Amino acid sequence: MDASSIEKPYVVGIDVGGTNTVFGIVDARGEIKAQSSISTRGHATAEEYVSAVCNAMIPLIEETVGLDKIKGVGVGAPNGNYYNGTIEFAPNLPWRGVIPLAKLFEDRLGVPCALTNDANAAAVGEMTYGVAKGMKNFIMITLGTGVGSGIVIDGHVVYGHDGFAGELGHVIVRRGADARQCGCGRKGCLEAYCSATGVARTAKEIVTNATEETSLSKIKIDDITSKDVYDAAVAGDKVAQSIFDFTGNMLGEAIANFIAFSSPEAVVLFGGLAKSGKYIMDPIKKSVDTNVLNIFKGKTKLLVSDLKDSDAAVLGASALAWELK
Amino acid sequence: MDASSIEKPYVVGIDVGGTNTVFGIVDARGEIKAQSSISTRGHATAEEYVSAVCNAMIPLIEETVGLDKIKGVGVGAPNGNYYNGTIEFAPNLPWRGVIPLAKLFEDRLGVPCALTNDANAAAVGEMTYGVAKGMKNFIMITLGTGVGSGIVIDGHVVYGHDGFAGELGHVIVRRGADARQCGCGRKGCLEAYCSATGVARTAKEIVTNATEETSLSKIKIDDITSKDVYDAAVAGDKVAQSIFDFTGNMLGEAIANFIAFSSPEAVVLFGGLAKSGKYIMDPIKKSVDTNVLNIFKGKTKLLVSDLKDSDAAVLGASALAWELK
Repeated sequence: MDASSIEKPYVVGIDVGGTNTVFGIVDARGEIKAQSSISTRGHATAEEYVSAVCNAMIPLIEETVGLDKIKGVGVGAPNGNYYNGTIEFAPNLPWRGVIPLAKLFEDRLGVPCALTNDANAAAVGEMTYGVAKGMKNFIMITLGTGVGSGIVIDGHVVYGHDGFAGELGHVIVRRGADARQCGCGRKGCLEAYCSATGVARTAKEIVTNATEETSLSKIKIDDITSKDVYDAAVAGDKVAQSIFDFTGNMLGEAIANFIAFSSPEAVVLFGGLAKSGKYIMDPIKKSVDTNVLNIFKGKTKLLVSDLKDSDAAVLGASALAWELK
Repeated sequence: MDASSIEKPYVVGIDVGGTNTVFGIVDARGEIKAQSSISTRGHATAEEYVSAVCNAMIPLIEETVGLDKIKGVGVGAPNGNYYNGTIEFAPNLPWRGVIPLAKLFEDRLGVPCALTNDANAAAVGEMTYGVAKGMKNFIMITLGTGVGSGIVIDGHVVYGHDGFAGELGHVIVRRGADARQCGCGRKGCLEAYCSATGVARTAKEIVTNATEETSLSKIKIDDITSKDVYDAAVAGDKVAQSIFDFTGNMLGEAIANFIAFSSPEAVVLFGGLAKSGKYIMDPIKKSVDTNVLNIFKGKTKLLVSDLKDSDAAVLGASALAWELK
């Protein structure tokens, strides 16, 4: 920890979601001293939104550690560009075009602010407080509504020449007529198979065509979730297990290709699906092992984040702030 | 250029090939002052091989610039591990196991030595003397007998946690029963489609099934080369052009996925295939544009190396030496 971290031993993490914005005050060990949230929607402009966040956040900071003890602010936001601290054309946020969000927070708080997308923030969070502590080379994959990623090489997140690198959820993994439509407008992206909605689609396909009996057929076919699949798998349902086999196989194939790119020490998985234990991890491991190039075989650890789901986004965002100069 | 580069204004590049070892003395602008080669084969041990290289190389250095003017030696070699300067289990080289090649050269020459694989060396060469001069983020793809790659992020080659990152020729791009067998033992690798032998296989498939007339049918089907396809394409042969369309499309699909990883400023192509001009570049560009994620569209330049084929390997290896401390 450098001198400024001793005088200013706390950071703030702000996670900008499509619905809510969660913020928290965090210490160097990743302990959240206080946390709160406001709605992301209902503010006429980005400036008014930032004001609303600060109006809720500043009293929280003052009550707990004091604004003068804050080293910096980190923001995780969809389509966040690390290089210039902007959000650019984020489809799920209420503001259009390029929004200088980091600068708006900096001006309002008088504290330096860094910003990146949520998956990159998650990677920094794992490196700072989580299972990737001390690692210089790893890939973070977030399995949620979408599939996100943050790639760390030589101890730094890869931002690319434009600030947007690391979109592994949109690597195309299936081609041809059968490839699934992805929300990005193209077909066959990893996200179309391994996100929560991807698993639900797989469940729909597999349950519809299942010849074996399955408890999942008792659920309305469009309502089956990853969680339902997990519960059924744990109860020994073979059809449910085959849904995870299919998903894990796809993810393992993709991870094997990612390993050929950056040869990471570990791949860290985060999200509900990753927490489905051996039902998802065994097929992923098997598939990585089958598909990876010989020279990489058995070298890359497959890890699951141990950060609490509800804390991870704020922790990830906050971790960015430790790296501010 | 630092102080040592002024006193020692030359570097040596050694390209270790399966058949020949080529070495040259290079200045900071990438001019090769002298170049020679010996056979890689026929030496009982790696030590004897290094002796033989040095016995041929030292007189060449002394005649031209003098050993005391050499800042360092860079070696490009298959399965080269940058971190420890070893060649590890290289299938096309005569020595088994792990060979400390950089140390052997260092001990013999009394000059610091860096080593990496040939494609990584090519990337450093492009960054130092070639079309990627000044670029911090690009991907080099070498299209030869195999398909190699060197990935540069934030101005540094990506070596990964083990020194072997950047094997993009062995990213699996086709799955299922029809996927082509690759020399690595797996199926569907980019190399099985876009290497010189991959193009020859495509030519064989397409010419065999061609309904249109093609001048390529005059060549024995197993003897068609990339060069034949190029000559026919230039002469207006539609079947030959469709072979390049197929190859360019595969390569473009793969490049679009690579862009999602590191969002490079440019992708630099090297090798005979890349020099087939618009016949290969147009389908690659079209395919990248069709397949790349929206936020990256139109951002990544597609460049062809302008280093002379015969010089590029030595230049690439030599460029490593400028980075030695």
